[in-house]
Amino acid sequence: MEDFLQKAKSSSQIIASLDGASKNRILNAMADALEANSSYIIEENQKDMQEGKANNLSSSLLDRLLLDEKRVVAMATSLREISVLKEPVGRILEGWVNDNGLKIQKISVPIGVVGVIYESRPNVTSDVAGLCFKSGNVAILKGGKEAEFSNRAIAKILQEVLEKNALPIEIISLLPDSSREGVAKLIKQDKYVDLIVPRGGEALIRYISSNSSVPVVKHDKGLCHTYIDKKADFKKAMEIAINAKCQRTGVCNAMETLLVDRVIANEILPRLYNAFIEEGTELKGCELTREYIEIDEANDEDFNTEYLANTLNIKVVEGVDGAIEHIVKYGSGHSEAIITEDYNTAERFLELIDASCVYLNASTRFTDGGVFGFGAEVGISTNKLHARGPMGINELTTYKFKIYGNGQIR
Amino acid sequence: MEDFLQKAKSSSQIIASLDGASKNRILNAMADALEANSSYIIEENQKDMQEGKANNLSSSLLDRLLLDEKRVVAMATSLREISVLKEPVGRILEGWVNDNGLKIQKISVPIGVVGVIYESRPNVTSDVAGLCFKSGNVAILKGGKEAEFSNRAIAKILQEVLEKNALPIEIISLLPDSSREGVAKLIKQDKYVDLIVPRGGEALIRYISSNSSVPVVKHDKGLCHTYIDKKADFKKAMEIAINAKCQRTGVCNAMETLLVDRVIANEILPRLYNAFIEEGTELKGCELTREYIEIDEANDEDFNTEYLANTLNIKVVEGVDGAIEHIVKYGSGHSEAIITEDYNTAERFLELIDASCVYLNASTRFTDGGVFGFGAEVGISTNKLHARGPMGINELTTYKFKIYGNGQIR
Repeated sequence: MEDFLQKAKSSSQIIASLDGASKNRILNAMADALEANSSYIIEENQKDMQEGKANNLSSSLLDRLLLDEKRVVAMATSLREISVLKEPVGRILEGWVNDNGLKIQKISVPIGVVGVIYESRPNVTSDVAGLCFKSGNVAILKGGKEAEFSNRAIAKILQEVLEKNALPIEIISLLPDSSREGVAKLIKQDKYVDLIVPRGGEALIRYISSNSSVPVVKHDKGLCHTYIDKKADFKKAMEIAINAKCQRTGVCNAMETLLVDRVIANEILPRLYNAFIEEGTELKGCELTREYIEIDEANDEDFNTEYLANTLNIKVVEGVDGAIEHIVKYGSGHSEAIITEDYNTAERFLELIDASCVYLNASTRFTDGGVFGFGAEVGISTNKLHARGPMGINELTTYKFKIYGNGQIR
Repeated sequence: MEDFLQKAKSSSQIIASLDGASKNRILNAMADALEANSSYIIEENQKDMQEGKANNLSSSLLDRLLLDEKRVVAMATSLREISVLKEPVGRILEGWVNDNGLKIQKISVPIGVVGVIYESRPNVTSDVAGLCFKSGNVAILKGGKEAEFSNRAIAKILQEVLEKNALPIEIISLLPDSSREGVAKLIKQDKYVDLIVPRGGEALIRYISSNSSVPVVKHDKGLCHTYIDKKADFKKAMEIAINAKCQRTGVCNAMETLLVDRVIANEILPRLYNAFIEEGTELKGCELTREYIEIDEANDEDFNTEYLANTLNIKVVEGVDGAIEHIVKYGSGHSEAIITEDYNTAERFLELIDASCVYLNASTRFTDGGVFGFGAEVGISTNKLHARGPMGINELTTYKFKIYGNGQIR
């Protein structure tokens, strides 16, 4: 492991200084290679599928695992899309001349060696490899063991392209020891690894955050709220509430709890009830809510649950401050929305809520790197530091100061 | 502890939304209060001094510990200087309209609850309190136990000003349990604490980095190099080398190793020798260096040592690539300089060296928040993520996205 990490670290110098044109050419060559080898990838994937079936994986997990011709093409397309993104390395973020006449430039640079730990879907292997490559980082990938044959096949093809371009294969590599112990070792190697990105279940993320000596950018749970204020435009409110809950339910930026201003509860709750019932949403409500509409009771645990399903808590609150109080207690700092036409109420909410994304009159479902215009998405960070909210390739860079002098001494 | 941290967390909402004018007024009131209570502070400091003497603290440690009238005034001045810095909260870092017509603003916001762990000098207590306050953060301070009376006195005075302004005293507080166990507990409280900044010895920083589940921005060692290239202007080279080593030796941005291009070793080493001997510098050199000048041998351990003293290693290297190779192996990623008049050589060094600050034709001693123009300095981060290099109050903020819609759904 130590030997491998040393190679990864020294490779990071090489990829960090590769120019954009070469990186883009190689990304396209990788895309071509994936397509050219699609039957090999599908063959290897079948081994994972067979084992998955033998191990009684659920049909939804098996579907996530499956690679067919179309999905291999999608992986290649994704690499080509990454290749056309604006070069993330070498951006001048700030620049000024100080009192001594030193010209100071704050410049974006790759982070170095990035370890990404993820589950199931094998396309993550090529996506993350491509994002790290474009941003000048070495990627150490640790996928789920249920996708081991697929991941190996994909990595092998990408590494062959690296080799053809006289680059070290460590620039894109699978963690050699893919056991739990391998991960435990990896997250202690701050000498060689600069960032760990865990993507997966809450337990995995919790374990890594508490035990890593390498900085972690995590994608935790998304327990998102929408608050309908008494000054809301009801048409917008209804559309946004339905969209935030129902457009796609298994995602982190979907709404879990709807907060309704007490002043309008009487008027809007029955309408919301009808609209949600039509969408097949299971509704639970606080005591006050249940005075207006006949639904199950929502308890404290419900308000703390990220359903990832078509289930919604409704709570009646005392104005924007009641909404803020509830969100401070139960929110996960992911995405929170207010629906109102009142300027002061809107700004109060947007300023006091401490979340990566705070919305006025829009659905929380927009928290997404693609929607934000970042191109490809690394993930949605629930960290407060380094990267917060949707992460694009720019968030896979850090900075350094380049200082141009002319003989200055202190 | 849990109770205290809960209060700290809830106070963070209050300080985060306090407007700039109020914060500046209160910072000035704190400065006034420190001056008005200087005899009380000095009295309490004397208790620390007496204990320090009884415990045989070294005279340099006792000097760091001492507070007199002048030093209390300096603490107050520092708070007033912080008050005039540009408001760090609410800066629009980026802003754009996405394809859906959402107006997206990336806005600077306070980090939340910041724990700062430091040693000896009691003025750090008011400095850090002021910096955190200005940037809208709650500060949990844990100073050295040798300064306990002084720190308590300073915190008490600052808290009285908070109280007078109807603010919770938890906004600036000392860690209630200041034992090692208290620190061990604090760094596990990621539920309440958003950032830990350790300032102190290597062992302390190492312990905190490896055990904290809260993100850490650390100020590690500075093992800085200066490389004199064959195309260097010798006058600049001599002045910068002397300045980088001798202007102040006990600091992290001082040079520890001088690298000299083999092509000019013959010509420049005797001149450097004379100049450094005049400064009383103890010189150690590699084998090649010792062919030109008669000095002690520098071994591998020397090249790995941050002397913090007037001692210097000299090594002869093969051009800029030899310099880069040495720095990659021994550098701490703090500050590295090249002296050359050649454009391509300069850019090769500035781009390939992965350090927070890379200098062309200037002394590494410039790595400093004040010199950079940041006003007050929180520290010099050797982290790669969140903040790198000199940290001003802006680096005590993070960001969130404020998204203004008009009924958008996905």
